[in-house]
Amino acid sequence: MSDTIQPWERLSELITKKNNTLITTFINTLSPSETARVISRLSEDDQRLLFSLLSPEDAADVIEDIPEEQAADLVEEMPSEQAAAILEELPSDHMVDVLGEMDEDASRAILAKMDRKDAKEARMFLEYAADCAGGLMISEFLSYKTDATIQDVLYDLQANRDEYIDYHVQYFYVVDHEEKLTGVLRMHDLLFPARKTKLSQIMISSPLNLPHKSSLKELEDFFDEHHLFGVPVVDDEKRMVGVVLSSDVEEALNKKKTKTFLRLSGVIGGEEFRTMPLLSRSGRRLSWLSMNIVLNIIAASVIALYQDTLAAVITLAVFLPMVSDMSGCSGNQAVAVSMRELSLGLVRPGELLWVLAKEARIGIINGLVLGVLLGCVAFLWKGNPWLGIVVGGALAANTMVSVLLGGMLPLVLKRLKLDPALVSSPLLTTVTDMCGFFFVLSFATAVMPKLAGM
Amino acid sequence: MSDTIQPWERLSELITKKNNTLITTFINTLSPSETARVISRLSEDDQRLLFSLLSPEDAADVIEDIPEEQAADLVEEMPSEQAAAILEELPSDHMVDVLGEMDEDASRAILAKMDRKDAKEARMFLEYAADCAGGLMISEFLSYKTDATIQDVLYDLQANRDEYIDYHVQYFYVVDHEEKLTGVLRMHDLLFPARKTKLSQIMISSPLNLPHKSSLKELEDFFDEHHLFGVPVVDDEKRMVGVVLSSDVEEALNKKKTKTFLRLSGVIGGEEFRTMPLLSRSGRRLSWLSMNIVLNIIAASVIALYQDTLAAVITLAVFLPMVSDMSGCSGNQAVAVSMRELSLGLVRPGELLWVLAKEARIGIINGLVLGVLLGCVAFLWKGNPWLGIVVGGALAANTMVSVLLGGMLPLVLKRLKLDPALVSSPLLTTVTDMCGFFFVLSFATAVMPKLAGM
Repeated sequence: MSDTIQPWERLSELITKKNNTLITTFINTLSPSETARVISRLSEDDQRLLFSLLSPEDAADVIEDIPEEQAADLVEEMPSEQAAAILEELPSDHMVDVLGEMDEDASRAILAKMDRKDAKEARMFLEYAADCAGGLMISEFLSYKTDATIQDVLYDLQANRDEYIDYHVQYFYVVDHEEKLTGVLRMHDLLFPARKTKLSQIMISSPLNLPHKSSLKELEDFFDEHHLFGVPVVDDEKRMVGVVLSSDVEEALNKKKTKTFLRLSGVIGGEEFRTMPLLSRSGRRLSWLSMNIVLNIIAASVIALYQDTLAAVITLAVFLPMVSDMSGCSGNQAVAVSMRELSLGLVRPGELLWVLAKEARIGIINGLVLGVLLGCVAFLWKGNPWLGIVVGGALAANTMVSVLLGGMLPLVLKRLKLDPALVSSPLLTTVTDMCGFFFVLSFATAVMPKLAGM
Repeated sequence: MSDTIQPWERLSELITKKNNTLITTFINTLSPSETARVISRLSEDDQRLLFSLLSPEDAADVIEDIPEEQAADLVEEMPSEQAAAILEELPSDHMVDVLGEMDEDASRAILAKMDRKDAKEARMFLEYAADCAGGLMISEFLSYKTDATIQDVLYDLQANRDEYIDYHVQYFYVVDHEEKLTGVLRMHDLLFPARKTKLSQIMISSPLNLPHKSSLKELEDFFDEHHLFGVPVVDDEKRMVGVVLSSDVEEALNKKKTKTFLRLSGVIGGEEFRTMPLLSRSGRRLSWLSMNIVLNIIAASVIALYQDTLAAVITLAVFLPMVSDMSGCSGNQAVAVSMRELSLGLVRPGELLWVLAKEARIGIINGLVLGVLLGCVAFLWKGNPWLGIVVGGALAANTMVSVLLGGMLPLVLKRLKLDPALVSSPLLTTVTDMCGFFFVLSFATAVMPKLAGM
């Protein structure tokens, strides 16, 4: 292992030698995820040197392979001319994604250096939220005027073969003289009619389309219902402005899921990569943890209130974290099921009572099973049935609370327009800790004479 | 709110009246996610009746809208003839997904009632793992023999217009007489040459393709590198067997993410829906929780070992759950970052030392910051600097342990071929609980005279 050269060491060597040909050849042998890994392990100086050596086309290929946040950081560091030349080589949606990750000054400086038409288009895209139809659409589509003939289309296809080679050509769109979408044609509709036929005669009129402000959820529903590669997007005046591809919708859903997952785990403020500067990584994580410390203090203060009981029955200290941890797990299960059903549209934020009814039954059954289990453990360990009843009863009660709360929280937070992924887990933990401590210690206080001195 | 009729109540009414036309019209007004929600809220009897009323085509439209697991449960309940008729109306990949969710006896019975050719194809698909190329591919593609002419293709397109209307026709594939993939053509390649030209003369030879056993990761890399709608899939003898669409790869990645998210939250054994029978839901959740109870007992036993210290300094009981909870959060952040980097390919399971080096620095900084914070709180509360040192020191040390462990765990579990999503979180919690309790109580024991009687 120790004497094999890592690929980024090899690349770093080639960069130092400024051997462009070998660099390009070497990068071409890597898969996209390998490229991402190798680039992220280079020193910042090597990264800068690499991009100054590559042609804009090759640099754009590399930029496409690495996660957007990292791509934005890299491009931001470059001189604006170089950044503009590279970004112009990216597909329009990807270019906008990278620009969108930058701060506004940086992206404005780069746009100023870009080809005027590309820059105008990019500015239009940047005005849309990243995951509405306008933000996800691509501008590489083919549209022709209503009075064009089949011959005109074929001539255009032939003349612009090279440019269209990367286009996703499944459909041709037909627009009127105000660019309003009026029809759609499939390629094979062109094969049989006479070449002088006007498109208006053979097109399918009033094709499916979506307004530019459609949400990701609306796009998801559209492609669930219609198995198409893409859908034309129109602005408020019904002018055709782009095409959203179903694969890009799936990709946006993927990104959203990743963000949800990371937030539930307490990684906030965008994605963290281990190649980021240490203090920025540490700061992002701390911002979340320091909020947690406050919530933890609130929860633990319940224990402080019952110090006398605890001092009298020190054995209870063993069970305090068990009861709160276990109910926390039960509650997290309910949070996950609610978040999943919300995202599938199987439950609506207003249906609290339905969720409560469904979770209450689970809470009772699982609370009883787990309470009896832990109660038996406590009884067998110390030989005192009252300890078993206190501990088992507390776990049963707290499981019930936690499951109900966990099931409801995502719905309530969604209604309050808060992010369930961000707030559910710390809120749930705080409440289950407080209640868990309270149940154990108050039950114990109630039957104190039976427990004293344990 | 209370006097509006819910859509499933309306549907249930129509079902009771057996009014087929209105049922179909009503369902067509619903978006896919609304359909899923409405169907899931019907009673089992209504569901059964509904599917016996709908035509196989309409039933298949409904089946497509609801989550696969639920679809499988519904179809399993039907008489096999009815189930077969409905499944034959689904796109091949979706049919196989639904069959794959059933137990083998049920799917075999349904396959026996299906059209022989469809059944044979389905059996072939079922042999593949659900998320390799063979499991994701569709069989609706167009292929022609090498010596076919352009005229032959145009004739076939014209003759089978209706069947092909749902196909994703972006490319035509060219195969030799042993069905081996030899070339690919785009639709507009057919437009200009003479109609008697053989496909072999104009096709692009040796097109990009993937073996049928390619993993989801390989498919993801392929579509990251090549911006195509689909890729032809070949078997071991290079015969073309299907096409994988990029949107289906994104969808499979989406499903995998959902499973990871649910497992991390302790929802295992497939997805849970609140409309499932109560005992099955409760059982699924309990299987995970009862494992947790054992791990919790192990962790809490550390407290039992130090009962004397705790009895002497009862204040410590307040800080035990705080130290273990907070370090658990720090560790979970590291788990999330590692799982994310693993899935992007930015880190490999073997690179433990790299991750340790990166996490150690975060562990030290965040441990110190949080330790000082909590130490100050403890000191201010009780006015004893030694309590602050014990509590703060324990949190700092435990944060360090937890961050290192959290960063490593996903890599180690992946190497051991265990599922990081399933095992990381309970293992991490157990260790951080044990260590947290140990640090607080052993540090306190060491400086006991300074703390006694608090």
